[in-house]
Amino acid sequence: MKRKQFLSLCLVFAIGLGIWFYPAPQDVPIKGWHLLAIFLATIVGVILKPLPMGALSILALSAATLTHTLSLQEALNGFHNEIAWLVLLAFFISKGFIQTGLGRRIAYYFVSIFGKRTLGLSYGLLLSELILAPAIPSVTARTGGIIYPVAKGIAQSFGSDPAKGTARLIGSFLMKSAYQGSIITSAMFLTAMAANPLIAGLTQDAGFQISWGTWALAAAVPGCISLLVMPYFLYKFYPPDIHFTPNAAKEARSQLIAMGRLSFKECVMLSIFVLLVVLWIFGSSISIKATTAAFLGLACILLFGVLSWEDVIAEKSAWDTFIWFSALIMLAGALSQNGFTPWLSQQVVKYVGHMPWALAFSILVAIYFYSHYLFASSTAHVSAMYPAFLMVAIALGAPPMLSVLVLAFSSNLFGGLTHYGSGPAPLYFGSGYIDIQDWWRLGFFLSVINIIIWFGLGLGWWKILGLW
Amino acid sequence: MKRKQFLSLCLVFAIGLGIWFYPAPQDVPIKGWHLLAIFLATIVGVILKPLPMGALSILALSAATLTHTLSLQEALNGFHNEIAWLVLLAFFISKGFIQTGLGRRIAYYFVSIFGKRTLGLSYGLLLSELILAPAIPSVTARTGGIIYPVAKGIAQSFGSDPAKGTARLIGSFLMKSAYQGSIITSAMFLTAMAANPLIAGLTQDAGFQISWGTWALAAAVPGCISLLVMPYFLYKFYPPDIHFTPNAAKEARSQLIAMGRLSFKECVMLSIFVLLVVLWIFGSSISIKATTAAFLGLACILLFGVLSWEDVIAEKSAWDTFIWFSALIMLAGALSQNGFTPWLSQQVVKYVGHMPWALAFSILVAIYFYSHYLFASSTAHVSAMYPAFLMVAIALGAPPMLSVLVLAFSSNLFGGLTHYGSGPAPLYFGSGYIDIQDWWRLGFFLSVINIIIWFGLGLGWWKILGLW
Repeated sequence: MKRKQFLSLCLVFAIGLGIWFYPAPQDVPIKGWHLLAIFLATIVGVILKPLPMGALSILALSAATLTHTLSLQEALNGFHNEIAWLVLLAFFISKGFIQTGLGRRIAYYFVSIFGKRTLGLSYGLLLSELILAPAIPSVTARTGGIIYPVAKGIAQSFGSDPAKGTARLIGSFLMKSAYQGSIITSAMFLTAMAANPLIAGLTQDAGFQISWGTWALAAAVPGCISLLVMPYFLYKFYPPDIHFTPNAAKEARSQLIAMGRLSFKECVMLSIFVLLVVLWIFGSSISIKATTAAFLGLACILLFGVLSWEDVIAEKSAWDTFIWFSALIMLAGALSQNGFTPWLSQQVVKYVGHMPWALAFSILVAIYFYSHYLFASSTAHVSAMYPAFLMVAIALGAPPMLSVLVLAFSSNLFGGLTHYGSGPAPLYFGSGYIDIQDWWRLGFFLSVINIIIWFGLGLGWWKILGLW
Repeated sequence: MKRKQFLSLCLVFAIGLGIWFYPAPQDVPIKGWHLLAIFLATIVGVILKPLPMGALSILALSAATLTHTLSLQEALNGFHNEIAWLVLLAFFISKGFIQTGLGRRIAYYFVSIFGKRTLGLSYGLLLSELILAPAIPSVTARTGGIIYPVAKGIAQSFGSDPAKGTARLIGSFLMKSAYQGSIITSAMFLTAMAANPLIAGLTQDAGFQISWGTWALAAAVPGCISLLVMPYFLYKFYPPDIHFTPNAAKEARSQLIAMGRLSFKECVMLSIFVLLVVLWIFGSSISIKATTAAFLGLACILLFGVLSWEDVIAEKSAWDTFIWFSALIMLAGALSQNGFTPWLSQQVVKYVGHMPWALAFSILVAIYFYSHYLFASSTAHVSAMYPAFLMVAIALGAPPMLSVLVLAFSSNLFGGLTHYGSGPAPLYFGSGYIDIQDWWRLGFFLSVINIIIWFGLGLGWWKILGLW
C-alpha cells in the first residue's frame, strides 16, 4: 500500500472513530449517530480512495454488524433491494449490447446518416447514445466503450490529434459534445446511470415513488432540447476548424459494410431491447416491475445464447456495482430510518425555513449542484446529500415530486462540470483533445444552460404533466 | 447450442409446463403447485445441464416473478439470506488461502512429517485437508486446487502414471484415499462444502437450528474415526505396491525450502483463519454470527492487501454459487411455506407411519443416501429431497436433531459413491489412476463403513452430547 493510501485510510478510520465517540446531539438516537460515523467514514473513503468503493462497503458492513449497530439482516437488506437488482441485471444486459457489436453498429449507422457536416456528426453520435441509454446503466461502458472509440476514430481520420497539435481541427469539438451528451442522456432514463436507481431507491425510502415511465416522460422534453442546444452552443463557442465531413459518413458506411448483415445474436439482442423498453414503459399497467422485466431480458439473453453464463459471472464491474450500490443504499436508508437525516434536515430548515419556498429551494439546488466540484463520483454525492436535501426541500414546502425531479436531474447534470465529475470524464479528458481551462469554462456555461432548460422550461413541462 | 442441450431444454420446459397445468392435488394450494412446476423443472435442468445452474436459476426467478407466482421481493429473498452470504464470503476467503500459497504449504508440511510410508503420506494429505476444510467451502477448490496437485506430484515422482500402466504402484491408492477424504472432511464442518449451508438454511426453514459449533462438535468423533479407518481399509483392500516412501518426505521438505519463509500475506491469512475459526466456534456466545465473522475476515483480507478488490470481484465461481444457491434456497423455502413439502411428507407418512420410527427412519435414510446414484450434484439432491425427508422423519417421530444430523452427514457422504457424485469426483476420476469398477466397488464398501461409523458410533456420541 502506498503512503498516500495508508494516510487516507487512517483519516477514514479517524473520522469514523471521531464521530462515533463524539457525543450525539440530543435529538439524534445513538444508533443513528453511530450509523453516521460509519457512513461518513465510508463516503470520505469513497472520495479519497484508499481502497476501491466495494472494499470500503465490505468494511462498512463489517463495522456495522460487528458493533451491533445493525443486525445482520438489516445490513444485508440492500442486497434484496429490487433497485440494486435492476442495476445488476442491466449491467449484464448492456454487456450483450457491447459484446455483440450492436452498440457500435448503431453508432456507425447514425454517423452514416447525419455525418456529412461536423455538427450533424455530433448529433448522430448523440442520437446513438440516446438510443442506447435506456439499457446501458454504466455511462462509462456506454459512452466510453461505444461512443468514444467511434468519435476518436473519426477525429483521427481527419488528422485531428492532440499529439500533432491539431486537436481543435475537429476532435476537441466532437469529444466535448460527446462527453456532455453522455451527461444529458444519463439524466433522461432511470436506467441510464448507476446512481439513478440509487436516487429512485432513496426516494422510495423517503416515502415517494418515481417509476421508470415517469422519469423518462419528465426528462423527455428538457432532455431533447438540451441535446439539441448543447452541440450548437459548442459549435459556436468552441468551434471546430472543419465544418464539412463527407468522408466521415462514407467511412461509417464502409464500417457498416465491413460488419456485414445483422447477426443472429444482434437480432435477438435488438428484440430483447425493444421488449425491455416496452415493458419498462408500459409494464406497470400489467404489474410487471422494471426488475422483473430485466430478469426476463437476461433470461432471454441466456436462453438464446447471446451471452453465456460464463460471460455473466465474469462481468466484474456488475458485481462491483452490486456490492457498493447495495451497501450504500442500505446505509443511507438506515440513516434515515434511525433519525439522523430527519434531524439534519430540521436543522437546515431552521436557517432557511423563513424564506419563501421557491427562493430557499433554489438556494438548496444551487448548493447541491455546484458542490459537485468537490466530488469525484456521482454515487458518493448522491448518497451523502440526496436524502437530506430532498427532506429539507419537502419540509420547506416545495412540491415533493418537483423536488425529486430537480434533485434527480441535478445529480446527473452536475457531472458536466469537472474532468473528474463522472465515470467517463477522466477518459475523455485523458484523450488530450480538451484543455483543462476549456473543460471547466465550457462545463460551467453548459451547466447554466442546462439549469435554464431543465429547471426553467422543464418546470412548465412538469406542470403540464401534472407532476406538481 | 448442441442438439442434446436443446432437447434437454425442451424437456425442462415440458416438465415445467406439464406440472403447471396438471390439476393440483386437493390439499396443495395452487401457488405451492406452481412453485413445484418451476422447482422441478429447475432441478431437472440442474441434472441434465442444458444451461449452467446459474442460468437456470435466472430462468426460474424470471418464471416465478413473471407469472406472479412469487412477488419480486419474495423471489429476491434468497439474496439477503445470511447463509447465502456466508457461502459467498467463504469463497472469497478461500481464495486467500489458494492465492497466497498457504494451502499448498500446509499440505507439503504434513507430507514432510508423515510421508515416510505410503499410509502416512495419505494421512498427511488428509490432515492438511482437515485443517483447510473449515475455511474452504468449495470442495473442488480445496481438494482439486490444493490436495490433488500435491498427490499427483508425489505419485509421478514415484513413476506411478496411468499412461505407463503403473497407476497401482502408489497413485491409485493416494488418489482414492484423497478423494474419499475430501468427502469426509466436507461432512465435518458447516463451511466445508457449499451444500452444507444450504442444509442449515433448509433446516432453519423447517423450524430447527444447527449452528457452526454444533455441526463441528457432532461430526468431530465420527469424522475423525472415519478419517483414520478409510485409508487403512484402502491400504488393505486396494493396496499400493510401494509401501515405504522416504523420498516423498524429502521432496516435500525441499518444496518447503523452495517456498521460503512464510510471507507477510501468508502470516496475515493464517491469523485471519485462526480468528475466523475461533469466532465460528465461540462467536455465538458473544452474539457474533458466522456470517458477521466472515465479513470481518474478508474486511481484514482486503485491509491488509492479502487480496485486492479486483481479485474478489473476479472470483467467478463465488458469484456463480451465490446466484444458484440463493435461488435454490429461496425456491425450496417457498415450496415449504406454500404447502407443497408438508403435503408431500404427509403422503409418505401415510405409507410408513405404522412402522416403528427407527425402522421407518432407517429406510428413509437408505433411500436418501443411495438415491445419490441418480444425482450429479449434491446441491440438486439436497434441495430436491432434504426438506421433504426431514419433514417426514420428524413426522414419523424421529428426534428432530438426530434427523437433521443424519440427513446432513448423508448429504456429504453419499458423494463417495460414484465418479460424478461430487464436484471434484470427475477430476480425480479423470486423472486415470482409478478404474471405474474399483471406484464404484470401493465407493460402495466405504459408504457402508461410513454409515456404520457415522450413524452407528455417531448415535452414541450425539447421545452423550445430548443432541437427542
